[in-house]
Amino acid sequence: MGLESYFEAFDRRDWQTADPDGTVRLAIVGIGGFARNRALPGIEAGDYCESTVLVTGSPDSVADTADRFDVETVIGYDEFLDGHASDAYDAVYVATPNATHGEYAIAAADRGNHVICEKPLETTVDRARAILEACEDADVTLMTAYRLQLEPSVRRTRELIDDGVIGDVVQIHAGFSNPLLESADAGSWRLDPDLSGGGALVDLGVYPLNTIRFLLECDPIAVSATTHSVDEPFADVDEHVAFRLEFPDAVTASCTASYNSHATSGLRVVGTEGMVSVSSPFGGVVPHDIYVECGDVGMEYRGVPSNEVLEEFDYFGYCVLTGTEPEPNGEDGLRDIATVEATYDAAATGRTVDVPTVE
Amino acid sequence: MGLESYFEAFDRRDWQTADPDGTVRLAIVGIGGFARNRALPGIEAGDYCESTVLVTGSPDSVADTADRFDVETVIGYDEFLDGHASDAYDAVYVATPNATHGEYAIAAADRGNHVICEKPLETTVDRARAILEACEDADVTLMTAYRLQLEPSVRRTRELIDDGVIGDVVQIHAGFSNPLLESADAGSWRLDPDLSGGGALVDLGVYPLNTIRFLLECDPIAVSATTHSVDEPFADVDEHVAFRLEFPDAVTASCTASYNSHATSGLRVVGTEGMVSVSSPFGGVVPHDIYVECGDVGMEYRGVPSNEVLEEFDYFGYCVLTGTEPEPNGEDGLRDIATVEATYDAAATGRTVDVPTVE
Repeated sequence: MGLESYFEAFDRRDWQTADPDGTVRLAIVGIGGFARNRALPGIEAGDYCESTVLVTGSPDSVADTADRFDVETVIGYDEFLDGHASDAYDAVYVATPNATHGEYAIAAADRGNHVICEKPLETTVDRARAILEACEDADVTLMTAYRLQLEPSVRRTRELIDDGVIGDVVQIHAGFSNPLLESADAGSWRLDPDLSGGGALVDLGVYPLNTIRFLLECDPIAVSATTHSVDEPFADVDEHVAFRLEFPDAVTASCTASYNSHATSGLRVVGTEGMVSVSSPFGGVVPHDIYVECGDVGMEYRGVPSNEVLEEFDYFGYCVLTGTEPEPNGEDGLRDIATVEATYDAAATGRTVDVPTVE
Repeated sequence: MGLESYFEAFDRRDWQTADPDGTVRLAIVGIGGFARNRALPGIEAGDYCESTVLVTGSPDSVADTADRFDVETVIGYDEFLDGHASDAYDAVYVATPNATHGEYAIAAADRGNHVICEKPLETTVDRARAILEACEDADVTLMTAYRLQLEPSVRRTRELIDDGVIGDVVQIHAGFSNPLLESADAGSWRLDPDLSGGGALVDLGVYPLNTIRFLLECDPIAVSATTHSVDEPFADVDEHVAFRLEFPDAVTASCTASYNSHATSGLRVVGTEGMVSVSSPFGGVVPHDIYVECGDVGMEYRGVPSNEVLEEFDYFGYCVLTGTEPEPNGEDGLRDIATVEATYDAAATGRTVDVPTVE
């Protein structure tokens, strides 16, 4: 099979084996920039979800958004918690500040609603586990909203690696930087550790972390890290983080994230027989070109960028409609938080820290 | 000044302000693959050095090489130490196993010969310092043979960074892997820690280490690391290493090196206002394309690869002929060895280790 076969039908939905009827009606909980600019358009463009309710702290400010996406019902957070309009949705997309994910996700699960929850699932392992338990008890679908797991460039890269095209993986480099203050002010909840659970690591570093776990299909066993906060707005959270994950079989992943650098990202996986890199893997609407090298041959894929948010919500809707367990499930989100906790511990102590196994 | 100005006259010798007469006559001490395939041709093609003596443990096996490069004199190591043919050279290029650099460099310095010595300068700080002291006492030039400091792509990248094109540097990624056993057998001195001083870190990792120090024009203050040896030939040295350097002002450099992976290398420097990457920066005769991004603009340089070994020896010859202190001097080499020692200490203890200041 030629290398080019990995890039044919690039955005094929390898996860789809049926075409279920109907759609999953979604309450969008938290109408921030990502919900407005990426999630609502992605849901509208996809097949298996529709947005039917917006939940917000400032209903007036989302009137235009509701109009634009034909959403009839706008309610406040307290109304949501009280069950208002719960006949109008089957599932919730939780996109509120991290430390409030549990409150809304658990309220929804307790009413029998399925949940797709933004990353990180919550701010601590214990709080995240409460979401898992609520969804298990209610027998509803829980998906952590890792859009990159539905990004075709990442899925094709995983296939290449899984097929041994680059041999055994040895060393990975991955970085994601995004200047927070270009899109948020210094009062952003992301800079309040009580609401965010952390800074660049929690908000940006989880992309390389989760994507690498997804590519390798295994979990890190240890981590070392260093964090820095230099500029005043970042006094209470990590402005920059560099962390090195150790996986079984001597595989290492050297990762970085920054809240205060030029917006860019990169991923490079070196194996015994080749290497594969993805340009701009973690950013938003940018080309995710793949370059793969194997022995003396190199090949580059430079296709049109996919809309991985559309893919993400269609995948969630598909999972709910077909009763399929999402691959980025609650446990997947929980394991990242366990690694985040170990990473902050490593940064604080200057020591390599074991990542605990969580289930 | 436009971005493209950095790439005009790409291989300009910014270090050259004179055109001295004459050449430096070199004894090549240790005729391994690099000496035969890169150094001797580079010296022959350049202006300021000429090879006049080969020093080897097996004179018969280098007869063809001597013929090819018109070198009249071939002597053994003991003859070299005894001063045979010392009228025929002004300087020595030491390219023997690492733990023997000191013996030959010091013998040469004691006779008043200038020294260009392969990296690492020696296997320990103490042994390297003995070379510095001998060269200082004899008042001869000492250069550590960091070819990348004379590679135009690295020099142009340093200029970009120094001019603030990418703002303040924040995070660096760099990796270099080269499968040793494709060019050496399991009996190679590189796998004997008494002769090499270490494995992938010492032989390959010093390239990212030294290049990053050169680009930033400062030294790391701390390091954390992990080393792995999995396959039997690498039982006594590090087969793979991942190390994270911490520099002043919260700058981190996440580096890797591997003796047993696909041959590849990469360098990526992210700053507050942009990023610059060099493809294949550390390998041999391969394009060192530069990609620089600043705000919303990106530019790529894809010129013909330079012969950085020619540049390196011409720089050494120029420094000797003009009495200029080389930038990759003995102290530069010494500082890398101090970092290497701290890196192995960090890997052994699982702790972040301070890098001592050495002079």
